Parts: sequence; C-alpha cells; structure tokens
Amino acid sequence: MSEVNTISEVRAKATLAKGAATLMNRLTTEQKNEALLAMADALLAERDSIIEANGRDLQRGRENGTNESLLDRLALNSARIEAIAEGLRQIVELPDPVGNLLESFERPNGLLVEMKRVPLGVIGMIYEARPNVTVDAAGLCLKTGNTVVLRGGSAALESNRRIVEVLRGAIADLAMPAEALQLIEDSNRASVDEMLKLNGLLDVVIPRGGASLIQNVVQNATVPVIETGAGICHTFVDESADVEMAANIAVNAKAQRPSVCNSMETLLIHRACAASHLPVIADRMRAAKVAIRGCDATRELLADAAPVTEQDYATEYNDYILNIRVVDSLDEALAHIAKFGTMHSECIVTENNSNAQQFLQDVDAAAVYHNASTRFTDGFEFGYGAEIGISTQKLHARGPMGLPALTSTKYTIKGNGQIRG
Amino acid sequence: MSEVNTISEVRAKATLAKGAATLMNRLTTEQKNEALLAMADALLAERDSIIEANGRDLQRGRENGTNESLLDRLALNSARIEAIAEGLRQIVELPDPVGNLLESFERPNGLLVEMKRVPLGVIGMIYEARPNVTVDAAGLCLKTGNTVVLRGGSAALESNRRIVEVLRGAIADLAMPAEALQLIEDSNRASVDEMLKLNGLLDVVIPRGGASLIQNVVQNATVPVIETGAGICHTFVDESADVEMAANIAVNAKAQRPSVCNSMETLLIHRACAASHLPVIADRMRAAKVAIRGCDATRELLADAAPVTEQDYATEYNDYILNIRVVDSLDEALAHIAKFGTMHSECIVTENNSNAQQFLQDVDAAAVYHNASTRFTDGFEFGYGAEIGISTQKLHARGPMGLPALTSTKYTIKGNGQIRG
Repeated sequence: MSEVNTISEVRAKATLAKGAATLMNRLTTEQKNEALLAMADALLAERDSIIEANGRDLQRGRENGTNESLLDRLALNSARIEAIAEGLRQIVELPDPVGNLLESFERPNGLLVEMKRVPLGVIGMIYEARPNVTVDAAGLCLKTGNTVVLRGGSAALESNRRIVEVLRGAIADLAMPAEALQLIEDSNRASVDEMLKLNGLLDVVIPRGGASLIQNVVQNATVPVIETGAGICHTFVDESADVEMAANIAVNAKAQRPSVCNSMETLLIHRACAASHLPVIADRMRAAKVAIRGCDATRELLADAAPVTEQDYATEYNDYILNIRVVDSLDEALAHIAKFGTMHSECIVTENNSNAQQFLQDVDAAAVYHNASTRFTDGFEFGYGAEIGISTQKLHARGPMGLPALTSTKYTIKGNGQIRG
Repeated sequence: MSEVNTISEVRAKATLAKGAATLMNRLTTEQKNEALLAMADALLAERDSIIEANGRDLQRGRENGTNESLLDRLALNSARIEAIAEGLRQIVELPDPVGNLLESFERPNGLLVEMKRVPLGVIGMIYEARPNVTVDAAGLCLKTGNTVVLRGGSAALESNRRIVEVLRGAIADLAMPAEALQLIEDSNRASVDEMLKLNGLLDVVIPRGGASLIQNVVQNATVPVIETGAGICHTFVDESADVEMAANIAVNAKAQRPSVCNSMETLLIHRACAASHLPVIADRMRAAKVAIRGCDATRELLADAAPVTEQDYATEYNDYILNIRVVDSLDEALAHIAKFGTMHSECIVTENNSNAQQFLQDVDAAAVYHNASTRFTDGFEFGYGAEIGISTQKLHARGPMGLPALTSTKYTIKGNGQIRG
C-alpha cells in the first residue's frame, strides 16, 4: 500500500496508458471500430445514470454560482447523449490512417525502406467542463490506435467519471484494452501541471478550451504540445469588393456563431469603398445585434460606433462585438493582420484577383479565404469529419485536425545483412 | 539610442528575421538557389579570412584547455571549407518542397480548398561549436524559404561571425533579403534562454548537439521544439540469427563511427544462441577495440567482460564501449528496448520472419531494422540529401529530417460569396 501512495494518480494512470500502447498499436481497424460502436451503444443504454451524474455536477455548479452559459455547456440530456453517441458512430465511418504506407523505396544497396503511419502513442487531453469532449476525444484518439489520458474541467467530474466508466465497461470483453482510456479525477490544478511535464510517458498534450487554459499549457509544458483554438480573425473588404457579398460574408463571420474561434473580431475596409460599403455592412451588423467599435474614420461614417483601442484589436471577444478599421491599402491590411492575427483564419473580399492572390500568399495563417466566410474553418466543413481541434501552430498539423493529425510515422528498413561502409 | 539599448540582441534579430519572412516566402526556387550558389562561391573566395577568424577561436580554445576532439570539430581548413561549400551546392540540387500542392478538392458548396507546403517561418537553431553547422543550417532553412536565427556555441563565435558576414555579403545584390540570416553573438547562456521563450517571433527551435544541450531546450522552451539526436540504440540477435551476419551488423553498428547518434550502445542476444554467437561477436568487437560490459550470463561466456549496471543501459556512450545482455525471449528484448531506448534506431537480426514482423511492429522508434545496421538512419543514406537532424520525437517529423520537415502547410479557400448556414 505504501508504494501505491507514493505514485501520483497522474503518473500511475499515464503509466497504465503507456503500458497499453503496444496492444492498441496491434489492433485492426475492425477491432477499433467494434469498440467504438460498443461504446456508442453503452452510452445510450446507460444514459439515465449519466444524466444523474451530470445532475450532481449541475447542482454543484448552481450552488457555486456558475453562470448559465457554462451550465448549458455542462448539461447533458437524452438528446445530447444521443448526439454524442452519433458522433462516435461517425468516427467509426472515417477511414483509419494507421498503417497507411506513405513512402516505399529500395536503396541501391538493396535496403527496402518503408514509412508508415503509426499512432502517436499516449495523448494527454486537457479541456474544460464539457462532457461531450470526453467522448469525442476518446473516440478520435482510440480510433487512431492511441491511448489517452483525459483531464477535463473539475466542474464536470461526476459526469466524466460516469461516462468513462461506461465507455470502459463497454469494451471489457473486446480486444481493445480498457487501460487505453484513462481519466484523471484529481481536480487540483497541480494534476494539470504534472501532466505537462510527463516526458517519456505522454507523447503529446492537446489543450482544448479558452485562451487562458491554452496559454497555461503552452507556457508550462515540456511535453510536445499542439496549440489549438485562439482565433482573432479578420475580414478585409478591398476597394473592389461587391457590397452585398462583403456584407453577407462579414455578418456571417461575425454573428452566425460569435462564440467560436473562426468567427471574425475585426473588419478591415479599404478607404476607397468605406463611404459606400460601411453603412450597408453596419446596418446588417446592427440587425444582427452586433455592437461596433471603430477607428476615427469609421466613426465619421458610423455615428453609433464606440472608439476602438489597440487592446480591442488584440482581443478575442467571442461575442457580439466588432472592431472596424479603415485602411489605406492592402499592405496596411496585411500589416494589421500580421500584428494582431492569431494565424487562424483570415479573409479578403475582393473582385481583384491580383490582390486576392497576394493576400492568399502573404497572410501567415492556417486558413486564408478569398470571398468566403472564415466560419468554414472546421473539420466537418472541409469534409474531414470530426476534429480534435483547430491547430494554430505551424508544427505537425495546421488548421482543422482530422485523424491523420493524431498519428506519427515510423520507418521500417528490411535488409539482408547490409552494413554501412 | 536609448530605445535600441532596451531591446536585447536576441529579440532585435528575431524581429528582423520575422520581418523578412514575407519576402522569403515570395521567392522562387530559382532565386533561392541563386542565393545559395552565391554563398558557396563566397565561402571559397573568402576562405582565408574565415580560416583566420577560426584560428582566433582555436587559439582561445587552446588557452582555455579545450580537449583535442572538440578542437578538431571546431577547426576549419581549406579542404573543410570546400566540403562545406559543396554541401550548399548539394542543397541547391534538392527539390524545393515549398508550394507543393498536397490536397485540392471542391466542396459541395463550391468552395475550392487547397493545402500547400509553406515555409515554417522563423527557425531558431541552437547548436555547439561546429562552424559547419552554421552553413548547413543556413542552407537548409533558406532553401525552404524560412528565415533563421542561429545561436552557435560561443567557442566558435569568431568563425561564425565571419561566416555569416560572408554569407550575407554574398546575397547583398540578390532577391533574398540578408535579414533572413541572423547570428546571435551574445555568448551568455541567457541568450539561449531568451530564444526558447520567443513565442510569436520564432515558429520553432531546433537544438543540435549533445544530450545536455537538447535537454535544456526541451525542458525550457515554450516555443515548439523539434527534439533531435539522442540515441541509445540496440541490436537484438535473435535465436535464429546467422552468426556472421549478426557479427557484421553488430560491429558496424557499434564501431564504424561510435560518436554518432545511430550507433549501438547495447547488444541483446537470445539465450539459445548466446553460447554459439557471443564468442564470435566478442572476438570481432575486441578486434575493433570495443570494451565490453556484460550481464552475468554474458560474463560466464566472456571472461574479459566487465559487469554492466542499469545506469550503463541508460547511457549513450558515443564511445568504444558496448553493453551486452542475454535475454530469454523476443518479449524480454522488446521490454528492454521500451525501457532504455530513446526511440531512435533499433535492429533485430533474425532468420525468423514472424519475429522480425513483431519487432518491426512493436518497437516504438523512428527507424526499425531487420537484418541491417542502425548506422543507416541518415538523410544521405535514405536518399534525402542533407538533413537538419534526426528527430526522435513523434510530432511533426520523425527520423532523418529532409527539407519537407522544415515546412508547414497552409489552406487557401476560394469562393464566390459562400457563407455558413
């Protein structure tokens, strides 16, 4: 017993996950799909006990004064559990990248070199109080032959604990080892900090949540990280933009779902069309209940615009608020985006193909649009199916991360006694 | 003036490098190759002044009591400068991955989605006192349209300063901006620490050198890192191994060039063939001046073997020293490799294809060999040309890193007014 007590929960569970990695790597696609389908069935069969556990989380949340929007993200009901189970079934339908042969060549000395996709290994997921992420992340990681250590927000602990019990129970008699799925129940912040330093046990940590959660991971992890999410996205309305198209795209990018990372925070507009286009765009924004903050030139055209600050340009509102800045040129728009953008999604609305080409070439972001809303940066919209997140870093994966982003590669080399001369 | 003094050299030069990134990204392959060829010519033309600067480094090194092997790595002469210039010419010959179209598809809503290779952006290189790395790294980074901030070992500062002057001078009248190549001259350790935290300016840091340099980067960087190098590699001689082949491969893996990361540190041998094979292998090792440390069973067979410790198994000797351990089974060999290996290069020598298949499948390493020396893990040996290093992590790149490892991707999406419903 004393030995058990000297190992933290985080290290103990990560060690179990790593121990299961070899078995996971041996599973066939059929075995992995069988497990995911059993999990989906079990979620539906056990929905009452999951809703009950979730009720305890909700009650604790209300007692702690959690706001309604967070409670809504936390809440599970029968329809939501059905949607979550359906998400697992959709992952089953996605092609399994593991084992794909990416390169194969014979060297002059007769060595046969092959490079294949393999699982990443052990994935650490750190996220907020959204129980659906528990199932999504488990499904995506396990489908790709990884094992996963989940550390969700403490406000969802009862829900997550019951969900993981159900998922593990569902595969008890199947080829997939239950140890491949681990949930950290220690709700102290220290358990997150410990995960971030587990080099040798975790192969990668993926944070999913708000800016402060992601920054904590990026700043403190020694394990490799895939940075996701933060989105200060711009739409640049160029001199030649069609006013109707510009208004449609801008309102969609801002107001169709302001809380997500691919929504727009700042509209840049060329001075030459500001007088003609801004009033039209502003009318549509007002109709969508968007509050406007503008530069001086904007405020001359829009009497109701509040003044915008540098800090506003650097803020991801995730809300019905929009900055507007009038610029003198495409270059000024590009400089603004380079300064304030988070390399997520950026758009130019223009009828000038040469300007469009320069924007697509010069903007350093995961997804750059010509005449379409930034809201399309999404795994489903790209046709990739469910995604583990949207990478805003340049290493390993960039943009919507489908299943291949959860894999690595391995060289195997077959010889008949070759040695190096 | 006061303003200049408040910005550190590291931040100032990284800012210049980032400022040059857009221009670099616009260069054609021809423009990049023209610059590299001009650099190669200039290195030859200016070899005297480079050798002179190198002489000052060598003199300082001797005065500081630097050992001969480090002095040898630091030393430049006419032949070595010719080899370095030739390395640049070889990089010119490599295909440029930037701009390659990796995906292209039209969505049902008419959006045209393309994913192309783009430069990573700004690469930080941290390395030791080897002036050849200055040129290699510059060549590989610039060929792929990146800008680069070099921080070499302080013992090579005079050499590196002169080399970078020559390289920048060579492109003064060409399309490639000289600001794309930056050398940190501050030889305090603090300048390395500062680079590791330059999120937003550096897109990646690549350490190249010994284990302590790499671990410092991995442990302290908040910028994404590509971990390279450390290699505790094994050769497992299975029950059915051909004794001649096993001896050839083992001696090559250990003694052909012990100082490099893909050389072998520990030989594992199946108990069933230990008595027949070990004496043959040991004779060959002795002839190659390799000192042997062995487990108890090894020492029963080899009277001159010193005892091996757990710490020995965890050590990258980079020297003419070999651990030998007798194991009872393939599984025991796999467990040893999982415990002590650094996921670099591993080999099984066997005539049993089923065992070979299991080894290739289960060993979690960048390169796994059947019947060939681990010494082949190398960009040139794989036919990729010059490499920036050998990645031992699973994210982004694994194994020998050719030019594609120095790129990221970008989505561009072309529409005609699409918005999300």
